[in-house]
Amino acid sequence: MAPVLYDFTAAPSPRRARILLAEKGIAHETVQVDLAKGEQLGDAYRAINPACTVPALKLDSGVVLTENIGIAAWADAVKPEPALLGSTPEEKGLVLGWNARIEFEGFMPVAEILRNTSKGMVGRALPGPVNFEQIPALAERGSVRLTRFFDMLDARLAGRDFIAIDRFSLADITALVCVDFAKWVKHEPKPEHANLLRWHGAVSARPSAKA
Amino acid sequence: MAPVLYDFTAAPSPRRARILLAEKGIAHETVQVDLAKGEQLGDAYRAINPACTVPALKLDSGVVLTENIGIAAWADAVKPEPALLGSTPEEKGLVLGWNARIEFEGFMPVAEILRNTSKGMVGRALPGPVNFEQIPALAERGSVRLTRFFDMLDARLAGRDFIAIDRFSLADITALVCVDFAKWVKHEPKPEHANLLRWHGAVSARPSAKA
Repeated sequence: MAPVLYDFTAAPSPRRARILLAEKGIAHETVQVDLAKGEQLGDAYRAINPACTVPALKLDSGVVLTENIGIAAWADAVKPEPALLGSTPEEKGLVLGWNARIEFEGFMPVAEILRNTSKGMVGRALPGPVNFEQIPALAERGSVRLTRFFDMLDARLAGRDFIAIDRFSLADITALVCVDFAKWVKHEPKPEHANLLRWHGAVSARPSAKA
Repeated sequence: MAPVLYDFTAAPSPRRARILLAEKGIAHETVQVDLAKGEQLGDAYRAINPACTVPALKLDSGVVLTENIGIAAWADAVKPEPALLGSTPEEKGLVLGWNARIEFEGFMPVAEILRNTSKGMVGRALPGPVNFEQIPALAERGSVRLTRFFDMLDARLAGRDFIAIDRFSLADITALVCVDFAKWVKHEPKPEHANLLRWHGAVSARPSAKA
């Protein structure tokens, strides 16, 4: 039986899992959880993932893996090639270190801008089962951080094809989805971010980017 | 040559790396970076880790790994036992998934309370090279989230000795340091959190907890 991915096509977080599974060539079924209708907060999905987030991956054993990093660790263990988490110890450290930086310095600011300004997210400033009011100052801070993030990533990509190591890795997946997600809040790399734009063009052209 | 851990004994984040290295039995040298004096923002440390955070681990090759998860991935690859990131694919998925939840639902709220209320952190509401003003609303939200986190962890530990899998794992290290860090902001498990208190007593008694 194939594992089941709880997904929502329009959302950035499950896109990370879709690209990962496509790069690994891991067959799976998909169940859509309509975030636009709040299905992630309903009893049916709460019984699957009490944290009310997507993606989640239900394995044959019935165990449900949540969080992109959990799904990636499982996928890398069941199908080691391509080695998206790195091959050597040093590569493995670099990939997960960079992945964490991209989440904290890039993904989190984008989410904070979106969730703290969008009218559709009033009272939903954080994912999960508890409602939190918007904090406008977080969105302002997020814009400053995101500008810095693009600068940082552009500098890292000088003379490099990929972010963490010399091959495509999980860090590139997370950064690709982050840069595309940033367009939702009207942030994108500037023309002077030549390295970042070159990298973005190349990783966007991979078949997995459309998964 | 042994790897060099850039550390600050009093701080919670590098404590996570110290416990991990102690559990793995990986010899290393230590350099203290005095966060109380702002040494992480000075030119000397910035040349080692431009993100100005500890822990960082400098390998023989000269490569510097940042982020606890990066250091853990490296350590697990150079010394697979004890398997702190899990052994089977399912275990690996559960450990990193739970570790990420503990970081987001536990560590982040504690840090937000501390950084947005402490007089010593005015203008330093986020780690890293850029200064950000405090946002008091974040501290209030953090208190609500932290209470929920203790409830969630207590429920997870009902009938269990460890958080993610049936053995001690990285998730237990992160949660131990998080629960101890929460005392800094006057949050601790309540007497009715019997499972959480039992687990905390057991993991605190491991020799590595004093690393």
